[in-house]
Amino acid sequence: MPDPHRQYEIRCPVHGFITLNDWEWEIISQPAFQRLRRIRQLGWTDQVYPGAMHTRFEHSLGVMHVATRLYEGIVSRSQGLLQSELAYNEDGLRRDKTVVRLAALLHDVGHAPFSHASEELFPSHAEGGKYKHEDYSAAIVRQKLRDVIETHREGDNYGIKVEDITALLEGRPEAGRRLFWRQLITGQMDADRMDYLLRDSLHLGVDYGRFDWRRLMHTMEAIPGTEGESLRLGVNEGGWHAAEALLLARYFMFTQVYFHKTRVAFDFHLRQALGEMLPAGFFPKPEGSELNAYLGWDDWKVLGLLAEGKGGEHGERLANRNHYREVHHTPEVPKPPDLKELERVREKLGSMVVAEENAEKSWYKIGQEDIPVRGQRKRPKVKTLSKYSSFVARMKPIRKVMLYARPEHAEAARKKLEGSRRQNR
Amino acid sequence: MPDPHRQYEIRCPVHGFITLNDWEWEIISQPAFQRLRRIRQLGWTDQVYPGAMHTRFEHSLGVMHVATRLYEGIVSRSQGLLQSELAYNEDGLRRDKTVVRLAALLHDVGHAPFSHASEELFPSHAEGGKYKHEDYSAAIVRQKLRDVIETHREGDNYGIKVEDITALLEGRPEAGRRLFWRQLITGQMDADRMDYLLRDSLHLGVDYGRFDWRRLMHTMEAIPGTEGESLRLGVNEGGWHAAEALLLARYFMFTQVYFHKTRVAFDFHLRQALGEMLPAGFFPKPEGSELNAYLGWDDWKVLGLLAEGKGGEHGERLANRNHYREVHHTPEVPKPPDLKELERVREKLGSMVVAEENAEKSWYKIGQEDIPVRGQRKRPKVKTLSKYSSFVARMKPIRKVMLYARPEHAEAARKKLEGSRRQNR
Amino acid sequence: MPDPHRQYEIRCPVHGFITLNDWEWEIISQPAFQRLRRIRQLGWTDQVYPGAMHTRFEHSLGVMHVATRLYEGIVSRSQGLLQSELAYNEDGLRRDKTVVRLAALLHDVGHAPFSHASEELFPSHAEGGKYKHEDYSAAIVRQKLRDVIETHREGDNYGIKVEDITALLEGRPEAGRRLFWRQLITGQMDADRMDYLLRDSLHLGVDYGRFDWRRLMHTMEAIPGTEGESLRLGVNEGGWHAAEALLLARYFMFTQVYFHKTRVAFDFHLRQALGEMLPAGFFPKPEGSELNAYLGWDDWKVLGLLAEGKGGEHGERLANRNHYREVHHTPEVPKPPDLKELERVREKLGSMVVAEENAEKSWYKIGQEDIPVRGQRKRPKVKTLSKYSSFVARMKPIRKVMLYARPEHAEAARKKLEGSRRQNR
Amino acid sequence: MPDPHRQYEIRCPVHGFITLNDWEWEIISQPAFQRLRRIRQLGWTDQVYPGAMHTRFEHSLGVMHVATRLYEGIVSRSQGLLQSELAYNEDGLRRDKTVVRLAALLHDVGHAPFSHASEELFPSHAEGGKYKHEDYSAAIVRQKLRDVIETHREGDNYGIKVEDITALLEGRPEAGRRLFWRQLITGQMDADRMDYLLRDSLHLGVDYGRFDWRRLMHTMEAIPGTEGESLRLGVNEGGWHAAEALLLARYFMFTQVYFHKTRVAFDFHLRQALGEMLPAGFFPKPEGSELNAYLGWDDWKVLGLLAEGKGGEHGERLANRNHYREVHHTPEVPKPPDLKELERVREKLGSMVVAEENAEKSWYKIGQEDIPVRGQRKRPKVKTLSKYSSFVARMKPIRKVMLYARPEHAEAARKKLEGSRRQNR
Repeated sequence: MPDPHRQYEIRCPVHGFITLNDWEWEIISQPAFQRLRRIRQLGWTDQVYPGAMHTRFEHSLGVMHVATRLYEGIVSRSQGLLQSELAYNEDGLRRDKTVVRLAALLHDVGHAPFSHASEELFPSHAEGGKYKHEDYSAAIVRQKLRDVIETHREGDNYGIKVEDITALLEGRPEAGRRLFWRQLITGQMDADRMDYLLRDSLHLGVDYGRFDWRRLMHTMEAIPGTEGESLRLGVNEGGWHAAEALLLARYFMFTQVYFHKTRVAFDFHLRQALGEMLPAGFFPKPEGSELNAYLGWDDWKVLGLLAEGKGGEHGERLANRNHYREVHHTPEVPKPPDLKELERVREKLGSMVVAEENAEKSWYKIGQEDIPVRGQRKRPKVKTLSKYSSFVARMKPIRKVMLYARPEHAEAARKKLEGSRRQNR
Repeated sequence: MPDPHRQYEIRCPVHGFITLNDWEWEIISQPAFQRLRRIRQLGWTDQVYPGAMHTRFEHSLGVMHVATRLYEGIVSRSQGLLQSELAYNEDGLRRDKTVVRLAALLHDVGHAPFSHASEELFPSHAEGGKYKHEDYSAAIVRQKLRDVIETHREGDNYGIKVEDITALLEGRPEAGRRLFWRQLITGQMDADRMDYLLRDSLHLGVDYGRFDWRRLMHTMEAIPGTEGESLRLGVNEGGWHAAEALLLARYFMFTQVYFHKTRVAFDFHLRQALGEMLPAGFFPKPEGSELNAYLGWDDWKVLGLLAEGKGGEHGERLANRNHYREVHHTPEVPKPPDLKELERVREKLGSMVVAEENAEKSWYKIGQEDIPVRGQRKRPKVKTLSKYSSFVARMKPIRKVMLYARPEHAEAARKKLEGSRRQNR
Repeated sequence: MPDPHRQYEIRCPVHGFITLNDWEWEIISQPAFQRLRRIRQLGWTDQVYPGAMHTRFEHSLGVMHVATRLYEGIVSRSQGLLQSELAYNEDGLRRDKTVVRLAALLHDVGHAPFSHASEELFPSHAEGGKYKHEDYSAAIVRQKLRDVIETHREGDNYGIKVEDITALLEGRPEAGRRLFWRQLITGQMDADRMDYLLRDSLHLGVDYGRFDWRRLMHTMEAIPGTEGESLRLGVNEGGWHAAEALLLARYFMFTQVYFHKTRVAFDFHLRQALGEMLPAGFFPKPEGSELNAYLGWDDWKVLGLLAEGKGGEHGERLANRNHYREVHHTPEVPKPPDLKELERVREKLGSMVVAEENAEKSWYKIGQEDIPVRGQRKRPKVKTLSKYSSFVARMKPIRKVMLYARPEHAEAARKKLEGSRRQNR
Repeated sequence: MPDPHRQYEIRCPVHGFITLNDWEWEIISQPAFQRLRRIRQLGWTDQVYPGAMHTRFEHSLGVMHVATRLYEGIVSRSQGLLQSELAYNEDGLRRDKTVVRLAALLHDVGHAPFSHASEELFPSHAEGGKYKHEDYSAAIVRQKLRDVIETHREGDNYGIKVEDITALLEGRPEAGRRLFWRQLITGQMDADRMDYLLRDSLHLGVDYGRFDWRRLMHTMEAIPGTEGESLRLGVNEGGWHAAEALLLARYFMFTQVYFHKTRVAFDFHLRQALGEMLPAGFFPKPEGSELNAYLGWDDWKVLGLLAEGKGGEHGERLANRNHYREVHHTPEVPKPPDLKELERVREKLGSMVVAEENAEKSWYKIGQEDIPVRGQRKRPKVKTLSKYSSFVARMKPIRKVMLYARPEHAEAARKKLEGSRRQNR
């Protein structure tokens, strides 16, 4: 009989050791979670950065670890507020830590093969919109992990139900006061970002994504909402530069890694190839028996199909590294003349352009989501990060457009553009 | 038209950037080399250390890099000896650096899926013995990379032929004076070991495999052979502790990582499952058209087949993590009573034991291969490392035996053994 | 007799090993250079970050190393331009690498005790302005290092004279085409900054100052000036984000480390105490026999005097950590209301304010010094970094003002301010 | 009024952040503790490894941190045994953690300038033996830190007295069951070693001292003594290789760093120079008013005196780096012929030998102190580490002898030895 108090340690290249209790160990042992071992964190990025082979499995454990540390730090600094505003006592905080850990652990459990690259292939739901990977995560928690979550002695202890976790994942009102903690799962300073920036940096061998996460761990706080609004997650004044650095780490990782021209090309081919492979061109729905079919799709399966020659032209391109080549791109933040030039280039190249991809990302959301910063005086004034930092709010969103040609036409396309530029002078 | 002098940089998490010239870039772009992206360095080790997803592709680049640095260091310290003993001049050294780089780059190109785990499934050759992965590497260089190696302007420059590389890989006498450099590819201080120890440590998140490789880079030398023997690779006195540390790094990685009981179980299942999948239970030979078939086997293909349910019972165990459990092991260096106990346990458990695996490894070879160390006096005495170090020669080889049971019998087996131990007192 | 071709290696925690030839080894062995072992890089910063004990000695070796790597990279990418615009051939490049190495090594040799903290105490020169640490560096090179520089066989080889080095350090026209390389010693992407950001980060244990210096090493280039202007140092398009990251690393180190309120207080006390200790309240001049006296001043001497109770009130405060406490500060980028509030606070506190310190720093210079970036097309357009980056030019310079009170008054001062804030509402 | 519950964080380059409560903060703020900022961890090692400038202050905080983590780990794994064998309940464990933290923090507070290098200059006590740095530590705790330790609300809480701490430091029977924890302060797996190995490695830039301390943290346990003996500190089977690695890390640091020939020379000069500087050639005693005088001796004071030209011939040698040069050394583990050769060399060189230094160190103590390892079976057998490891017990102690000559005679001495070696053939 397994020891219900046993602790398990898993070695993590970012955080040293990650500790799980027996309940959490049982959860990650389920096939639906083990599947994350077969989904790489960064899809085909290894084609550009050969070290990028790590998986969602490793990352999910890391997010749980980071969320726990942040949770503990916030509790130690904001116990009074959590008590007065959200009526938490020690037991409640202990219980909800458990829920937050599971939500962090499971937030990615619904990912499609090759992570974000293939999310366009999610089917539409009844109301017309497309399913998101969070919908799959919640469905898997409900249908595949209910038993292990609701019957283990550890969960039983606190009466934790599957819907406690999905409510947190989906941000439903039933989550109640726990919605405060949802910002640790999805928000501008969430554990997900913190972990992937650090982890991707390590395996790829870049420094871009490193930031002072320990400083955030020691400065994140609950901040009272203004005028009767609810508590928000923020930092005290000692942490605002660390929050700023987190945003910048994301900026650098996106511009240098995630939006790399070759990586974007591979993502394009992958979507096309998957479209060919998938029964109706879309992934199965996160419902009923279709969910089982969905779970069958992972990187292994797709790689196996590619190795068999499946996936049509684009499958072949993936398998042979015969990918499209970028022949033109706008600046990251294009101005009207850049868009005009893009127009000209599109015309000039005509059918030579076989793919047009957009890299779009915002760095910081102001307005409602601007991170609150608590001043260090006795009667602290709360201002937002965009007031503290002279440039965070001025970092313009990226709207880069990239045009691709077939490899055999790339040279010709580039020459054509050179020629036309000469004439334009 | 590509620029033949172009330099390419590939980001490496261990070494920063790895630089290739256009010729080398063309070589690694060949499908036979790109296949290494689909062969993980450590097989199923990620089941125990989740970060262990890195590939032979990344490693092969690293070996080339390390071999180059070592080569350059040795040349700078031993130019006189290389000239007097091996009749090298500067041009010759420049040329052979190129050959060493390619041999380092290509030494693993013949690896089977999941690296060493599946080498038992290599077929036998005409003379009776089994093929080794080096045979596959040489065959691939000859049959698949001849064109790209022999026709590029850069190789042409030096008149480098495929047989220059295979002679070095295989250690044939035709390699002539270059045999001296072979110790950088395979030997007690080779670039292969140095790279994998550092790389595995990084991705797994352990410190075991770290050693002072820069110190070795600055102290490795050519050492005159005694009594008319040929030049040997050694270190000067300033480097003997670094050489000692390299051996220990290997010792720690093997005992803690490569011989981990769960990893060994997965390797067992993998061999069984592959045996089922492979046409005649063995890999195709490294000859003629069979080589093409061999190249079709990579991790992707095997993972795809597993996802389809292939591989029999053991395939199922791999796919569902339903692996055998270790129920007994001897010490790493078993003594007669340990072997006697092993015998008793085998008997006691009978058919409950479904697999018996050996972990065997030596740490240091004395005799002919003992690393020479040059003293620091003007008329240096050469002694061997085993004379310098009080314990290197005393590190006993590992001969650990592990017995495994089916997961459903593991508890019963362990109880049975507990019981029998009590009676024995 | 020492071997003139001997190479020396010094272990560096940032760069691994730093290699010097016999000539350079002789230079760093001179007392005037060894003195840098007794000047800490960051003055009293260890009072806030206990790891900050490293010295200018270690840093100077690092700057030489980084400058060399950058030099080699630029030469390999811009050989054509360096030839056509500056008439360099291979020998000339080899010779000037030697000069650049020495200039990098010696640029800080004139530093006062506790580095920048005490530069205010430099005396005035005949023309009225104050001497700078560069003047001391040049004087030391001329008066103390002439022999070792001009008589060693290695320097003799290239006919290198002391004035070659000082011309580079001082930016005099005599430096000729070498002025191009001066940007590696002092500029927006110089080796000095690169080294101190990395080194300070390591010893302090922060990530703020880490940036992708290897990427810069692989992308920095000579860029043709517009309209007959001279060559400039820039990056190609692949490196602009790395250049951006270098600026940000500096921003984070200044805001989080170098301008830390307690560090600033210690610097204040140090200047006062040194003023008491120095014969006429100023350091000796970098001229004639006064230079010898100047060289006698190092951290050791000052620390010894402090231990003896010298340095007046402020010496006592340093020795007993009884430093002034910050009671008010403006934001880093104060706006008019912040300055008004500062005015009010000054008045309110009156004589309680015993020190007012300014933290001022710009992050990026546009105009003439804006870093040029070469586009990646065949006929490249050169644009400046401020055109590429949406925010670098918008990072506002810091103009933070900090008010300090005696420790025994700090609490009272803060209360007074609290009170006045309440009334102001 | 300071907040008695305030937490303080200090940035540590090895451990991230080190957290202290208000009581501990008060303790480290005392002049007797701040003095450790003025005592470098490795004396003059920076002359060989320029990064080695870090202090006992930084290290002492680290030891407290490591001791705490180890304490917590052992409690979590051995709560039952600690209860049954030592009658600990939760409160007792909480209280004693506080005592262990302080003992760890203060164990080095009595260090002399330049750490171990000058311990030979400790005076003799009444009973005839020499004082040790632990005697000074205990005296300082008693005489200088009593108030801050015994009157703070936090210490008061648990009724902690100064004698609780000194009993632990000195290993007196009054420490009672706490003697078990003394092994964390001084023992084969103590927090002191763990911290200095990691910290020295980081600042020097070497990998020698890195070992898997997190693994030890997760495997160290209380192990029942055999036959009525008391509890001992050991590891479970999962940790024995980590314990082995800790011993090896020490071995490598001693042979490569701490016993470096130039470092040993500087230590020699330092002892001589200090002997000249100290009033009666010895440090003041750790008693009465002499203790105040002792506390006045720190690196600053000595460096100041050296800068003034004090310290006689050896002071001059230190100040000018004009140190003795090693002209002969035995192997690390000399055999009879090596000792015979040493004898011959001594005779041959005669008065040219001006210093003879010994480097002596054992790596592992067997017998009573052999580290116990608990097997992983349900009824575990305890064996000692020397039974598990094939070589730990065989690592021979170092007994290296080094002979030094004045720098101006070094060349002549070496030639003389060369000559005599030729004749001996």
